[in-house]
Amino acid sequence: MKLKLQHFDIKIGQHKVLFNLADAKELGVNPGDRVRIRGRESVSAIVDLTTDMVEAGTLGVFTEVYEHLKPLAEELTAYTVEVFPALRSKSGKIIKKMMDKEHLNREEINQLIKDVVDENLSDIELSAFMTASYIHGMDDDEIEWLTRAMIDTGEKIEFDTHPIMDKHSIGGVPGNKISLLVVPIVAANGLLIPKTSSRAITGAGGTADLMEVLCNVEFSAQEVKEMTEKVGGVLVWGGSTNIAPADDKLIRAEYPLSIDPYCQMLASIMAKKGAIGADNLVIDIPTGSGTKVANVQEGQKLARDLINLGHRLGMNVECALTYGSSPVGRTIGPALEVREALKVLKSLEGPNSLIEKSTALAGILLEMGGAAPRERGKELAMETLRNGKALAKMKEIIEIQGGNPDVIPEEIPIGEYTADVCASSDGYVIEFDNKWLIEVARLAGAPNDKGAGIVLHKKMGEVVKKGEAILTVYAEKEFKLETAITTAQRTNPIVVEGMLLRRVPGATYGLQ
Amino acid sequence: MKLKLQHFDIKIGQHKVLFNLADAKELGVNPGDRVRIRGRESVSAIVDLTTDMVEAGTLGVFTEVYEHLKPLAEELTAYTVEVFPALRSKSGKIIKKMMDKEHLNREEINQLIKDVVDENLSDIELSAFMTASYIHGMDDDEIEWLTRAMIDTGEKIEFDTHPIMDKHSIGGVPGNKISLLVVPIVAANGLLIPKTSSRAITGAGGTADLMEVLCNVEFSAQEVKEMTEKVGGVLVWGGSTNIAPADDKLIRAEYPLSIDPYCQMLASIMAKKGAIGADNLVIDIPTGSGTKVANVQEGQKLARDLINLGHRLGMNVECALTYGSSPVGRTIGPALEVREALKVLKSLEGPNSLIEKSTALAGILLEMGGAAPRERGKELAMETLRNGKALAKMKEIIEIQGGNPDVIPEEIPIGEYTADVCASSDGYVIEFDNKWLIEVARLAGAPNDKGAGIVLHKKMGEVVKKGEAILTVYAEKEFKLETAITTAQRTNPIVVEGMLLRRVPGATYGLQ
Repeated sequence: MKLKLQHFDIKIGQHKVLFNLADAKELGVNPGDRVRIRGRESVSAIVDLTTDMVEAGTLGVFTEVYEHLKPLAEELTAYTVEVFPALRSKSGKIIKKMMDKEHLNREEINQLIKDVVDENLSDIELSAFMTASYIHGMDDDEIEWLTRAMIDTGEKIEFDTHPIMDKHSIGGVPGNKISLLVVPIVAANGLLIPKTSSRAITGAGGTADLMEVLCNVEFSAQEVKEMTEKVGGVLVWGGSTNIAPADDKLIRAEYPLSIDPYCQMLASIMAKKGAIGADNLVIDIPTGSGTKVANVQEGQKLARDLINLGHRLGMNVECALTYGSSPVGRTIGPALEVREALKVLKSLEGPNSLIEKSTALAGILLEMGGAAPRERGKELAMETLRNGKALAKMKEIIEIQGGNPDVIPEEIPIGEYTADVCASSDGYVIEFDNKWLIEVARLAGAPNDKGAGIVLHKKMGEVVKKGEAILTVYAEKEFKLETAITTAQRTNPIVVEGMLLRRVPGATYGLQ
Repeated sequence: MKLKLQHFDIKIGQHKVLFNLADAKELGVNPGDRVRIRGRESVSAIVDLTTDMVEAGTLGVFTEVYEHLKPLAEELTAYTVEVFPALRSKSGKIIKKMMDKEHLNREEINQLIKDVVDENLSDIELSAFMTASYIHGMDDDEIEWLTRAMIDTGEKIEFDTHPIMDKHSIGGVPGNKISLLVVPIVAANGLLIPKTSSRAITGAGGTADLMEVLCNVEFSAQEVKEMTEKVGGVLVWGGSTNIAPADDKLIRAEYPLSIDPYCQMLASIMAKKGAIGADNLVIDIPTGSGTKVANVQEGQKLARDLINLGHRLGMNVECALTYGSSPVGRTIGPALEVREALKVLKSLEGPNSLIEKSTALAGILLEMGGAAPRERGKELAMETLRNGKALAKMKEIIEIQGGNPDVIPEEIPIGEYTADVCASSDGYVIEFDNKWLIEVARLAGAPNDKGAGIVLHKKMGEVVKKGEAILTVYAEKEFKLETAITTAQRTNPIVVEGMLLRRVPGATYGLQ
């Protein structure tokens, strides 16, 4: 069928075209069917119907499809294309197999991930894929193939020097700024560590959001390689490198459904590491209430699965189950966290929990990479902090990423609007609610407002006096401070409890 | 956050808005989040992001949301709205529960179906709902609530006279035009039968497509009621009545995924019957290869589940497992099928399979409605055909629906382009391939081209001579005839096999 093109200048993130109902009937296609459109170039797209948006004889195309068809400027008003019904996509059939809990082969998984990366799946198909992944999961072979497909559909970095070190933290713990310490410690000891990180989607700040306070974080894969070869390490945003890009596309369905299918999580983590050619990888698994991993048993299973997958990919993986029920250090939010991390680098001044966790993980990498003998990695990591080599390396990293290496922590701008949340009674800190701490930081403006966040004045078990400040909220905008404080007071994210047990009535009369 | 409105004059079937990336960051929302937009009216919508389609400070809205906000003509250029982050939808949480195979309560199912009907779910959510339904299914309570929710979210018809009769056929068999006989037979015996039918989506012609050859099929629920009260029966398209509209919305996800979750199928069938207040319902379950029900065991389970669901809804249901491996009658495609059905009504002239099946099902309804004693329904149905009362009733139905009651079957226009498919050898008809017969009819133009379709010259077991025509394809357009014939020759939808068994080699040497 020949149709005149009508361009709707909107990107909708899918290959969709609008048919007039009469044309669709004539061609015998229904909404959700695929058609092949042949113009200057050929492209396939998903059918949508309208009775009034386009006239019969006209095909409405959104920008993604329009650009594929490459009309010439002079024919824009009379560009005609030929349209054919197309077969159901291969991926559609593969997704149906997944729903039926049938085993997928390697070619099928490759096809699926290729279509994900090419934005060739409709929202309907992508969501069915994620839902079936969430419900049925995948076996070890399928997860390996999925990981390899995610690696192969993006850019890869091949270093001439090895080993390549890397580090990953499973999310969920606020204030987890340890990469800002681990990377320079490891690089200062002569190992290469090209660390790509994420920005926060539901958190108060990913490592990329933090590092952005100090310097640029958006680089190509080639730049990541060159910078790493020069200074030993980088701290960049993975999203701009096109390394394992499938993950970012899957989020389109995972995020609105609030799911993170286990098989996808494993594959997403390991694909990013595989694509940069990591040989040795340490994975931080924060465990406890409010984290992604509820208890030690789950943490151990996750660790085993990650180690096993690493083995299949030729990667040494060690996992560290870490305490995740309360924030790491005393700050949450980009600028506040960067201040805290830089102070540790400068003068070993800072919360014990932060120093302990960072040196423990860096120590594992130093041992894996052969820079320290077994059992001596943590010691070397501490020494690297103490002798200023980690700070010197961090300055090199900041400088090569285009920032000011001589930045003074205290001069990093933080939100000018602040307010305290105070204890309503004497007692002890007995619980942190990670989820609400993150929410309060987000309401204050983090991670977009770099200066927004929370400083915690009390840690677990500390004594608190009634009226004493237990945390301070920082914001760049007054109205955001207000919303954050209101929520903090309502949700009580730091629980203080007195020494008195609850009063138990002596007796009850009758049945309630 | 206050934003200026920019209207994109496109209907996209969902409540979506486009944020500039900067505004979304400032507001703290991600793609897939919901926001509440307050203008002249208030409406919730799903967030999408763009860097170039709308400027910062501007909110792009598609037609659905735009119409909700009701801007006045004079302020179109400067209509400002206030936007707030909204909580995750209730239905989102309910869908997550379904994924986790948790039991839903009645309120949850009501909420879900209300959001489906209001087009308040994104494609991502709708697809997850259908995928989880397909994988996990629902229990009897959930299916009952689902059915009731589907009834309550649409229009209902309440008749003063009872009983109300109805009939439904599970799809998949080509040429199943029996409603055109069953409805007039039942109505001719004084029973009310307000039959709503579907148009074909993947078939060659639904009852509504067929009836449309003769008269109008688009009526409101009120008109359906009035016409039924006047002449005893109607044959209309369900889609124009707004009876149980949820079903049509679910197709948006079911069709592209090629799934029809069992629980949704049960509920969709029974909701349409419940909404018109049916007391007695006969369900035709075609069974065999190429139908939706592969074997008798599956057919019996489906029958039990439908009868059980009917019982919960206060409806008497009887099911008839029918032979479905070959077409009903000798015609496939709207006009050809109507000709065949009218001939039976006029003169009892026509294929035995069609007359047998129609009178059997009509007979069950006559017995259920008390018009015939037990075991005597079929006899009465035959008698109603023979004495011309069914024809007279059909004329009344055609007339009240705005058609010509004196239409001559032979004068109903059929496709002028025809071609035969001939047997390539002597033999017997041993198999029909329903799927390819339907496909050939569709390629010829059915159901949109009313005159397109297939006439079968041979039935199961009949002797065929080499070169003899086994079917004729009809089309309204020459190029469609060609595609259909090519496909028919390639796929061989009627299998003719000789008497000779395949030759078996005497011996094989070595291992293959």
